[in-house]
Amino acid sequence: MYKIAVLPGDGTGPEVVREGLKVLDAVGESAGFKLDYTHYDLGGERYKRTGEVLPDSVVDELRQFDAIYLGAIGHPDVKPGILEKGLLLRLRFELDQYINLRPVKLYPGVETPLKDKGPEHVDFVVVRENTEGQYAGAGGFLRKGTPDEIAVQESICTRKGVDRCLRYAYQYAMKRNKDKKLTLCGKTNVLTYAFDLWERAFHEIGEKEFPEITRDYAHVDATVMWMVKNPEWFDVIVTENMFGDIITDLGAMIQGGMGIAAGGNINPEGVSMFEPIGGSAPKYTGQNVVNPLAAIGAAAMMLDTIGEADAAARVEKSIMTVCESHIKSLAAGRMGYNTQEVGDLVVKNL
Amino acid sequence: MYKIAVLPGDGTGPEVVREGLKVLDAVGESAGFKLDYTHYDLGGERYKRTGEVLPDSVVDELRQFDAIYLGAIGHPDVKPGILEKGLLLRLRFELDQYINLRPVKLYPGVETPLKDKGPEHVDFVVVRENTEGQYAGAGGFLRKGTPDEIAVQESICTRKGVDRCLRYAYQYAMKRNKDKKLTLCGKTNVLTYAFDLWERAFHEIGEKEFPEITRDYAHVDATVMWMVKNPEWFDVIVTENMFGDIITDLGAMIQGGMGIAAGGNINPEGVSMFEPIGGSAPKYTGQNVVNPLAAIGAAAMMLDTIGEADAAARVEKSIMTVCESHIKSLAAGRMGYNTQEVGDLVVKNL
Ligand SMILES: CC(C)[C@H](C(=O)O)[C@@H](O)C(=O)O
Ligand SMILES: CC(C)[C@H](C(=O)O)[C@@H](O)C(=O)O
Repeated sequence: MYKIAVLPGDGTGPEVVREGLKVLDAVGESAGFKLDYTHYDLGGERYKRTGEVLPDSVVDELRQFDAIYLGAIGHPDVKPGILEKGLLLRLRFELDQYINLRPVKLYPGVETPLKDKGPEHVDFVVVRENTEGQYAGAGGFLRKGTPDEIAVQESICTRKGVDRCLRYAYQYAMKRNKDKKLTLCGKTNVLTYAFDLWERAFHEIGEKEFPEITRDYAHVDATVMWMVKNPEWFDVIVTENMFGDIITDLGAMIQGGMGIAAGGNINPEGVSMFEPIGGSAPKYTGQNVVNPLAAIGAAAMMLDTIGEADAAARVEKSIMTVCESHIKSLAAGRMGYNTQEVGDLVVKNL
Repeated sequence: MYKIAVLPGDGTGPEVVREGLKVLDAVGESAGFKLDYTHYDLGGERYKRTGEVLPDSVVDELRQFDAIYLGAIGHPDVKPGILEKGLLLRLRFELDQYINLRPVKLYPGVETPLKDKGPEHVDFVVVRENTEGQYAGAGGFLRKGTPDEIAVQESICTRKGVDRCLRYAYQYAMKRNKDKKLTLCGKTNVLTYAFDLWERAFHEIGEKEFPEITRDYAHVDATVMWMVKNPEWFDVIVTENMFGDIITDLGAMIQGGMGIAAGGNINPEGVSMFEPIGGSAPKYTGQNVVNPLAAIGAAAMMLDTIGEADAAARVEKSIMTVCESHIKSLAAGRMGYNTQEVGDLVVKNL
């Protein structure tokens, strides 16, 4: 029995989460485990009603779960930033989910915007540091509102934070056992403080603790180029928070877009949170047309992390079958099936 | 008569610069202007010989020119960062080249890695702030070398620096007269100091001074997605230094890669510097196989900036003809012609 906190969130979040839970229940039943869900109505609606984004008491409750399953955050009537910072980023920080894990895998049958690239070329994982860098929120203004205004935004990297992220990435490259290669994505020639620390830690830990892993380095600007031109060069990429944000969205696009991309906010020693990385798609709300595969993929990642690797693999395999043999497109309204039917297809193919 | 400082630089830099000068001379002769070149042997070789990257006296001399034409910087025997910081970044800062201008245009006949995208889809310009942000180099370490080490890397944005960049971008969107749209690429929901300043300045200047320009905003993570999925959405993009570095390299890739992408480091009130944005490609040095079109494109941008817009347009048109009707590929060694022959083709088609 696993205790799961469910945060369906805004817009189409609840619709896709419903399909994720359907699949989780089905795979749990056949594999012999149970999931117990507690729903939290956090998001834009609650904020509009109560002015509250995330009560402190809820943060404490969330610490008690085996995992958190999140739909989508973002409401057309709420100023951008409030829910993202107040909910998503706050949970990442308070639950110390220091890894953002983003597999970038093109499934057979899925359309990529890249020419001449297929599933054999697009299969890598980004390990993004999730609690430091410019996301720390440090900075300020001088002479705000005057022509002499200066804004400072600080990126803070700690050796402790970088080390634990690097170790996770190295271990992931070991476990994945593909090319046994870890690429540090940075900007050593310009960010000479932040990436000096990253680079030293990268080599020290790699050399001492993971001699089997090949260490590679790419500037962030080169990384985005190779992702588009030669995605097959990558196995596992590790990077800091802001660069990770950018390259994982590019990754989502080359693996087929928001309809398929899932991510995990992981605290290996605590409570992790899994989410489809698309938004709340408010214009489709209630229409039963958006693609739930990303949310189902997030559910699979969750299973893997709580210790049900076999069940996770079965869900992923079923998603692949549905992509390859059933749905026409990943795009909302063009799948050839509605949201619930796609969920049913995944259950049927488990 | 224009006075041009020529910095051929490292690796294949001199080979491509030679073709650029050939084209400049040809178009100047037929258009009735002359260019007077002064060569500077800056780069990795000189650094190895003398330990000097960029003498102060040279910086002062460079201020006297109408423009600077740069080949490529980067030497296999020189530690990465030394030449980039000591030469390229130093010139940007000391000559206050506060704009990095990067047209992203797919020419007919040029191969893009994007599926279903042609010249009608890829035609936008990135205006990158070139003297502030994390490139300011501010930051430091605490407890360096210990497990408690902290590295801080600061992004500094000034209202003055942002304003002048925005005004340039708005003016560019007016002059370009395509969609009359300017997209601010930022991260307002996380970089709440830096992009608060940017966003306020963006709207204030746009509203007051450029009411005809449509203002658009995209987070940097969304920007890289749309560049790959819907590049046709963009007209002019304006952004800060680090984001600009990332998105312009992605832009270079979707317009066909390093063989074609050119950029300008522009001080509208001072001396500007133009460069092909690819590297020095040391492995091809002296082989007469690399593509000079990016360097020739940089020469065209230079002509435009010094006031020879017609000549610039003729060079660009000739590059397009050569791409469409002559060379087989932009890649080194696969053009169907050698470096010099491609230069000759551009001259012939002027
Ligand atoms: C919503 C936003 C704050 C968030 C981020 O920047 O991390 C998102 O883009 C993501 O990648 O999860
Ligand atoms: C060489 C490097 C310092 C430079 C930068 O980061 O600006 C380059 O990537 C560029 O875009 O011109």
